[in-house]
Amino acid sequence: MSDDTKIVTGLGKAERHRVLVRNIDLTKDILGKLSFGQMTFLMLVGRVPTEDEGRMTDALLNVLVEHGMVGNIIAARFTVSTAPEAIQGAVATALLGAGSVHLGSSEYCAKMLQDALPLDGVDTDLTAAAQGVVEDHANRKQRLAGIGHATHPDGDPRADRLYEIAAETGVRGRYCVLLEEIGKVAESRHKRRLPINVTGAIAAIASDMGLQWQMAKAFALVGRTLGAMAHIGEELRNPMNRRISKLIRSSLSYEP
Amino acid sequence: MSDDTKIVTGLGKAERHRVLVRNIDLTKDILGKLSFGQMTFLMLVGRVPTEDEGRMTDALLNVLVEHGMVGNIIAARFTVSTAPEAIQGAVATALLGAGSVHLGSSEYCAKMLQDALPLDGVDTDLTAAAQGVVEDHANRKQRLAGIGHATHPDGDPRADRLYEIAAETGVRGRYCVLLEEIGKVAESRHKRRLPINVTGAIAAIASDMGLQWQMAKAFALVGRTLGAMAHIGEELRNPMNRRISKLIRSSLSYEP
Amino acid sequence: MSDDTKIVTGLGKAERHRVLVRNIDLTKDILGKLSFGQMTFLMLVGRVPTEDEGRMTDALLNVLVEHGMVGNIIAARFTVSTAPEAIQGAVATALLGAGSVHLGSSEYCAKMLQDALPLDGVDTDLTAAAQGVVEDHANRKQRLAGIGHATHPDGDPRADRLYEIAAETGVRGRYCVLLEEIGKVAESRHKRRLPINVTGAIAAIASDMGLQWQMAKAFALVGRTLGAMAHIGEELRNPMNRRISKLIRSSLSYEP
Amino acid sequence: MSDDTKIVTGLGKAERHRVLVRNIDLTKDILGKLSFGQMTFLMLVGRVPTEDEGRMTDALLNVLVEHGMVGNIIAARFTVSTAPEAIQGAVATALLGAGSVHLGSSEYCAKMLQDALPLDGVDTDLTAAAQGVVEDHANRKQRLAGIGHATHPDGDPRADRLYEIAAETGVRGRYCVLLEEIGKVAESRHKRRLPINVTGAIAAIASDMGLQWQMAKAFALVGRTLGAMAHIGEELRNPMNRRISKLIRSSLSYEP
Repeated sequence: MSDDTKIVTGLGKAERHRVLVRNIDLTKDILGKLSFGQMTFLMLVGRVPTEDEGRMTDALLNVLVEHGMVGNIIAARFTVSTAPEAIQGAVATALLGAGSVHLGSSEYCAKMLQDALPLDGVDTDLTAAAQGVVEDHANRKQRLAGIGHATHPDGDPRADRLYEIAAETGVRGRYCVLLEEIGKVAESRHKRRLPINVTGAIAAIASDMGLQWQMAKAFALVGRTLGAMAHIGEELRNPMNRRISKLIRSSLSYEP
Repeated sequence: MSDDTKIVTGLGKAERHRVLVRNIDLTKDILGKLSFGQMTFLMLVGRVPTEDEGRMTDALLNVLVEHGMVGNIIAARFTVSTAPEAIQGAVATALLGAGSVHLGSSEYCAKMLQDALPLDGVDTDLTAAAQGVVEDHANRKQRLAGIGHATHPDGDPRADRLYEIAAETGVRGRYCVLLEEIGKVAESRHKRRLPINVTGAIAAIASDMGLQWQMAKAFALVGRTLGAMAHIGEELRNPMNRRISKLIRSSLSYEP
Repeated sequence: MSDDTKIVTGLGKAERHRVLVRNIDLTKDILGKLSFGQMTFLMLVGRVPTEDEGRMTDALLNVLVEHGMVGNIIAARFTVSTAPEAIQGAVATALLGAGSVHLGSSEYCAKMLQDALPLDGVDTDLTAAAQGVVEDHANRKQRLAGIGHATHPDGDPRADRLYEIAAETGVRGRYCVLLEEIGKVAESRHKRRLPINVTGAIAAIASDMGLQWQMAKAFALVGRTLGAMAHIGEELRNPMNRRISKLIRSSLSYEP
Repeated sequence: MSDDTKIVTGLGKAERHRVLVRNIDLTKDILGKLSFGQMTFLMLVGRVPTEDEGRMTDALLNVLVEHGMVGNIIAARFTVSTAPEAIQGAVATALLGAGSVHLGSSEYCAKMLQDALPLDGVDTDLTAAAQGVVEDHANRKQRLAGIGHATHPDGDPRADRLYEIAAETGVRGRYCVLLEEIGKVAESRHKRRLPINVTGAIAAIASDMGLQWQMAKAFALVGRTLGAMAHIGEELRNPMNRRISKLIRSSLSYEP
C-alpha cells in the first residue's frame, strides 16, 4: 500500500489552462457567476450554495469587518508605518490579535455547541443538551462562550440581525436553537440577562451550515482582512501613527 | 491649533447600540442587504457600489482564493499542525508569502499604471503613456509588472475573464486600456506574446475603480485568507504535514 | 487620581543621548560588557546575572536554535521565496509554528510547575506536590507536559545536558527537583520510562530563574529566530523551495 | 543526474541521539561551551568564532533589544492582550514592523556596501568606491542608508560604541572603513554632519564578518524577539492596553 505516502487534497487544482475549485471551473463557472459569499460557502462546505445561503454567508462575512479603532487595527497601522513595502505583514498583524479574547471566540462557542451536539449526530433533546452544557461549565467554573456582552448587556443588535437573516434564509437549525436554549438556562441560573452575542451567533449559524467548529473563525478572519486593508490604506494616505506614539509618550512613565 | 494631536478616521465607529461603517448603519443597512463584494467596495472606495460594481468586486475577490497546493498553503498547513490552538497564526503564515514574487505583484503593476496616469489626473494619450512606461522600464532594465506569464505563455484565462467582466459591468476604463497598450508596445518591442496576467488585470481594474495602488493587493489577501482557512480545515480533518515532512526528509541530504 | 491613565513601563527608555535598559546605560554598561545571554537574563529577570547565570541562559538559548529541516523552517523558506523583500515575514512564519505541539510546550510545563509551586510560595513537600500534579492530570485525562519523548524514549540528551549545566551553575533549584519527582511518580504509575524532555528542562530551569511561566517560551523563540535567519540565508543562496514543491506535487492527488 | 531533486542543507541535522549544528555536536560541544553570541556567528558565518568575535556578536545582538515603547512594541502588546494563549503571535507582530523605515534598514545599508565592494572581491580604492556610491545615490535621488539620524544629529552613541568594539575585537575591516568614507564624502557634498547611525554600524560590521547583506537584519530580529518577550511579560503582569486604547479614543474623531 502506497497510501502512507499519498498526499490528497479535495480543494483545488491549478492546471495549465484552467483552475478547478472543488471540481468547478474557476474561469467558466465561478468568476462573474458566484458572489464571494457563495465562494466562501463552496470552499468551506463543499457545494455551491443557494442564493439564500450565499446571502447568509455575506452577512457573516460583513458583520466583523469594521469596529472602529480597536487594538489590532492600531497594531496593523504601526506595522505598515515602519514596513510600508510589506502590506501583507500589516494585515497579518491585525489577524494575529484574533485570539481567545477578541474576534476568535466564535471558535470556542462552536466547539461548545458541537461537543454537545455532533455535526453528524442524531436528533436530541435540545433543552436537555443545553442544561448539560450549562451545568458542565458551572462545574468546571468556565465561562459560557457566545452569550453575554460587556458593552451590550441588553443584547447585541448584530447578533439579533444575524439570527433574523438565518431565519429568513432557512439556514437556522438546531444549533441556533441550542444556543438560545443555553442562553435561557444560563439566564435562569444566573438571574441576569445573557443575550446571544455576535460571535455566538456566528458560531451557531456556521454550525448549522455544517462547518467544523474550527472554521467558525473564518468569517472574522476574512472580514477583518478587509477591514485591516481599509485602515492600512487610510494610514498610508493620512498617517496617524506618530500622533498616537506622541500621545502614548505623553502619558508614559518609566519606573525601573 | 490642536490639529496636530487630533486622530481622525473616516472608516467606522462602534457605538453602544450601533456600528457605523463609512457612515452607514451596519445592522440596519448592511447586514442582509449588501454582499461582501459590495462591502469590500464600500470599505475601499468609500461609497455603496452598484450591483454591477459589486459583481466585479466579487470576481476580483474570487480569482485568487484557490490555486492548489502552492508554497504559502503548505506553509500554513505546517503552522497549524504545530499550533492548532492559534489558527489565526496559520492564516497569517499564508498571507506573509504574498510578496513581490507571488500574489503581491498586483501592487507593483497598479503603481506602474498610476505613476503613468495619476488617479486624479486629466486625460492623456494612452498609447504615448504606454510607450513611456515600456521605454522607462527598458532603460532601468526592470521587468514590466502585470504582463507575461511563465506557465500561461498564450494568455492567462483568468485575466481574460476579469477583463470581460470589467467590460460587462462598465468598470473597464482608462487603466484597463493603458495596460493593454503597454502589452502591445512591449510585444512589438520584445517580439513575443506578452499577455496581461491575472495580477495585471486585478491592478488595472482596481485602478479603474479608483483604488490607490497599494490597495490592489486587498483582493488577493482577502481571497487567500479564505483559501488558507479551507486548507487549514482540511489539514485538521486529514493531516498531510507528516507525509510532506517524510517526503522531504527522504530527499534531503546534510552537507555541512 | 490620575493613576488610571498612567502608562508605566520598567523595561527601558530611549533618551536623546542614551538608552536605558532596566536602568542600566546601554552604551556605557551593556555593549561590549554583557553577553547576549546576560542581556536576556537582565531583560527577563530584571537584574544583571552572574557569569554562571549568563552561561546557563546561553545554553537555554542555544538548545533549540537548530533541529534540521522541521516544518516551521520549511514554511519560512516558502515565505522568503515569494516575499524576499520582507525577511521579517519569513522569520515571523517560523515563529508562528511555535505552538502547543512544537517548541511552545515549555510554556505549558512551566505553568504546571508554577501552579503546583507558586514563584513566591513558601517551601513545600516536593514529592507530595509531584503526586498531586500527576493525580490531577490523570483525573483530567491530560498529558503531563515536559516529560516523555516520542523520538527519545530513553532520554533526551539535550535535557540531560541542560540539567547538568543547571547543577554546575547553581541555577538548579526546587523546580528542577519538582519536575524530576513528577517524572518518577509518573513512571511508577504508568510503568514506563518517562524522562524529562528538552522543553521540560527549559521550563524547570526558567522557573528556577524566577521567570513567570509564560516567559519560558522566550528561549525557544529567540533561538528559533536565529535558526530561521540561517535557513533563510541558505534559501536565498541556494533555493530549495521549487524542488520541495515539485516533490510534493509528484505525490499529490486531487480528489474532489 | 538526480541533482535536480536533491535537497541539501548544510546547517544541521537531528539524529536519534544527537543534534548536529554546522557539523558540531550540540550537546557535547555547544551547550555550556559556546555563548549565544558565538552560536549566532557559527550559524550565520559557518565556523566557531574566537571569543573576540563572539563578544562583537553579543554587542550586535544587544544593541537593538530595547528602545522603549516604540510602535512595534505597542503592537505586540495589543496582540497579546487579545490572544494571550498564542504569545508567538505577539512576538511575530513585533518583528513584522522591522521593515524599511525601522529596524530593517541595516539590510539596505549592507546591500549598498556589498554592491560597491563584493564579499569575495579583490582590494579596491575605498575612497573612490565611496565617491561612486554617493554620486550614484545622488543621481538616482536615493537616500544613503546607514548615515544620518533624525534624533541623533550629532552622532548616535550606539554606533560609535559598536565601532569601538569592532576595533577592539579586530573585526573592523574594509566595510567599516568604506562606510566611514561614504559618510565623509556625503558630508562634504551635503555640507552637514552625517554620522554613521546604528543600523549602518551593524551593516558594516556584519559585512566585515562576511555575512551576505540580507543577514545584516538578523541581529535586530533576534534582539527584538527578546525585547518583545520582555514587554509581553510586562503586559501580562501589568496590562496597559486598555489605557492606551482609552487614550486614543479620547483623541479620536470620526469624520466619515
